[in-house]
Amino acid sequence: MLETHEIVSYVAATFTTASFLPQAILTIKTKDTDGLSLGMYSMFAIGVFSWLIYGIQIEDEAIIVANAITLVLACIILSFKIYNSFFKKPSIPQLKKKR
Amino acid sequence: MLETHEIVSYVAATFTTASFLPQAILTIKTKDTDGLSLGMYSMFAIGVFSWLIYGIQIEDEAIIVANAITLVLACIILSFKIYNSFFKKPSIPQLKKKR
Repeated sequence: MLETHEIVSYVAATFTTASFLPQAILTIKTKDTDGLSLGMYSMFAIGVFSWLIYGIQIEDEAIIVANAITLVLACIILSFKIYNSFFKKPSIPQLKKKR
Repeated sequence: MLETHEIVSYVAATFTTASFLPQAILTIKTKDTDGLSLGMYSMFAIGVFSWLIYGIQIEDEAIIVANAITLVLACIILSFKIYNSFFKKPSIPQLKKKR
């Protein structure tokens, strides 16, 4: 039988891992990375990669799976940000509806 | 003496926690939340809050501190997103330089 704190940790891991899915979908759809911080996604990817290594070291399957998924999603978002920041050809300023 | 996996976990926690600082600074400065997912920050805040509860339950100071900091930063970003999405008066489309 699971203890309360174990249930809480599963809820927490599910939410923090799954949260990057709507962000990745939004970024893929809109390609708008102006409001995304390059610093954040660079540091976050390093951090999640470190958690993955940690999971492998202590052989904890839940930590490995959660961080592997998060790493893939974070790297997708980071790729769009890097592309837009460094490789995208400059275009004329475009009309963009403020939300 | 710290074991390797403990050092890795501290590095991981530092990076994933600190990563939200540049994002919060960028959002405060530019107020641009178009590229940020409301779903992500809502789910992420719930997840981090759950990790905070978990830290309190197992009385782990590092988990409490790391998630308290992340929660504050995530809530700042989420507040801007909610304000821009639901409370900001519609304005004429503005010129925005594509980066």
